[in-house]
Amino acid sequence: MSLRTPAYAAHSATSQLEPWSFDRREPGPNDVHIDILYCGVCHSDIHFVRNEWNMSRYPMVPGHEIVGKVVRTGSAVTKFRPGDSVGVGCFVDSCRSCAACQAGEEQYCTKGLLFTYGGEDKDGSITYGGYSTQIVVDENYVLRVPDSLPLDAAAPLLCAGITTYSPLRHFGAKPGTKVGVVGLGGLGHMAVKFARAMGCEVTVLSHSPSKGVDAQRLGAHYFIATDEPSVFDSHAGSFDLILNTVSAEHDLNPYLGLLGWDGRMVLLGLPNPTPVAAFPLVFRRRSLSGSLIGGIRETQEMLDFCGAHGIVSDIETIPMSAINEAYERMMKSDVRYRFVIDSQPQELTLRAQSGSRNRWTSIR
Amino acid sequence: MSLRTPAYAAHSATSQLEPWSFDRREPGPNDVHIDILYCGVCHSDIHFVRNEWNMSRYPMVPGHEIVGKVVRTGSAVTKFRPGDSVGVGCFVDSCRSCAACQAGEEQYCTKGLLFTYGGEDKDGSITYGGYSTQIVVDENYVLRVPDSLPLDAAAPLLCAGITTYSPLRHFGAKPGTKVGVVGLGGLGHMAVKFARAMGCEVTVLSHSPSKGVDAQRLGAHYFIATDEPSVFDSHAGSFDLILNTVSAEHDLNPYLGLLGWDGRMVLLGLPNPTPVAAFPLVFRRRSLSGSLIGGIRETQEMLDFCGAHGIVSDIETIPMSAINEAYERMMKSDVRYRFVIDSQPQELTLRAQSGSRNRWTSIR
Repeated sequence: MSLRTPAYAAHSATSQLEPWSFDRREPGPNDVHIDILYCGVCHSDIHFVRNEWNMSRYPMVPGHEIVGKVVRTGSAVTKFRPGDSVGVGCFVDSCRSCAACQAGEEQYCTKGLLFTYGGEDKDGSITYGGYSTQIVVDENYVLRVPDSLPLDAAAPLLCAGITTYSPLRHFGAKPGTKVGVVGLGGLGHMAVKFARAMGCEVTVLSHSPSKGVDAQRLGAHYFIATDEPSVFDSHAGSFDLILNTVSAEHDLNPYLGLLGWDGRMVLLGLPNPTPVAAFPLVFRRRSLSGSLIGGIRETQEMLDFCGAHGIVSDIETIPMSAINEAYERMMKSDVRYRFVIDSQPQELTLRAQSGSRNRWTSIR
Repeated sequence: MSLRTPAYAAHSATSQLEPWSFDRREPGPNDVHIDILYCGVCHSDIHFVRNEWNMSRYPMVPGHEIVGKVVRTGSAVTKFRPGDSVGVGCFVDSCRSCAACQAGEEQYCTKGLLFTYGGEDKDGSITYGGYSTQIVVDENYVLRVPDSLPLDAAAPLLCAGITTYSPLRHFGAKPGTKVGVVGLGGLGHMAVKFARAMGCEVTVLSHSPSKGVDAQRLGAHYFIATDEPSVFDSHAGSFDLILNTVSAEHDLNPYLGLLGWDGRMVLLGLPNPTPVAAFPLVFRRRSLSGSLIGGIRETQEMLDFCGAHGIVSDIETIPMSAINEAYERMMKSDVRYRFVIDSQPQELTLRAQSGSRNRWTSIR
């Protein structure tokens, strides 16, 4: 038996997302069956839909910022009960045996990290993500969402949240650390909130001077408009840690020059390769690093931190049917700061259409 | 009064080094007057002589791997006595007040690091290095050379030694750490000796398969000939820490791919900027870092470590008059592994020649 699941899917790198349906597995002993309430729309969803990283499989149901309620649990599940508010992030399984998995940093699993969508599961099936109404996930890869958080605005924590929280923690952000956040989008605005809550001195660096007001509102102490090149000289050596959230290709060297002695810039996006100079690295022992989401343990820690500090994402809620328009707006950076699909306002039915493809429509 | 000092100098970016002389200052209360016995020939000497970093001043007397004997000391000197074996490295003063200086990492001084040659001293004079017969240095910037070490082979420790020792220590090399050393030259051969002595698992990576025998002799456990591109796939993810000693421009990305989770590659040379990809950094939280020599405290620690472990450089000793030929051979990587100028075998006299230029010749 299986669970027929309405969804939105892309059928090729050039097609729009459209209604589709597929079967989820019946929950096994260790599985949690989750009714999806909200799913954040991550910029990487667009990269995957358009196969920009050459690893996409179609049909593709994107979505890895999933929040919902537990419907039922497998017989061996101990961590969750029906009715619990839970989240699912970028991956739903891993090898569980490599050094990274053993250390609880499954995101760096070297053998079998299973992405929430577009990944190949142990049984050979392809995973489908959160642009859908329900999901079945092993309890060890399910997160608990604190009751104090609004579920819609909590959804982006599962990717944008942990992606910025993890490097701040791992690279030692603490009270007084001078943190720069390059780019104020879905990732950047979360980085500001976390760094501020950790007691850091927070500066937003953005090409758009208009972002200054929001930067302050979100908690930044300072704002540097990088459309004026002289700022790279006047602020040289000013930062301990820079989180660079920009995915578009850009010259990294001026930003490296903003770091002080032993400073580090962490790439969170995946910009195209650009020339990096050795001088700024060698003469101040600076580092250019990367960081990828976070492990299950740290993601739970992040959610609990958010619960304690009242941190969520700034969101704009959309129905799933508006996803293609949302993508268009994201490409123009026209969102402050995350679209979240609300899966519930519409009552959904599945209608069999021509051939095996199902068409999903809403009845108002 | 001042100290007339025979030397070899470059008078422009395109001229050969030739005999010259200049005046050293009389030792002040805190100064140590050192009779130079040996001076290592560093590849950066060539970069400076040829003004490849656009910061050279002429006449230039290179040399920052200096070993000699104390001749006399200023009235306030407490650390050294006449007859002591001492060394002078890449810098002879710093601001002494910035965070780096206060932390004993003067090499990252932000206000006044004074290079041993080509730097501008507080009194406006230009510093001259170790291709000369004597030097006067503040005692706080003088190192003690353990009695157990041969002085000629100890000279390269002052730059090639500390340049490789410091990043191993700073970035946590310990027993079992999988260390890769890219390039087996003056720096690389020291990196192998140190990493081996620290209990690391040491692999040399070199374009030249012929270096394999030497790599083993120097203490490496493994050797990878990188002229075969497939090695980057077959050894992907194998290293914790890579010291990259190559100054020539080369693609860094394949080497980054050799690092495991949380691995780090440290640039010790100054290759031209090349495109660095975000993927290898992000997907394993790898870092690309730089490192510059070491501070006085760590340089002394390194010398003491060498004394305890019997570590020195592999050298070829030359008279100062052979320096231009040595440079030519270095440009062809024809040295195993460091030229060291022996300042003493010749009895030197100064003869006034036409104009103010002095000519330094040896009398056999």
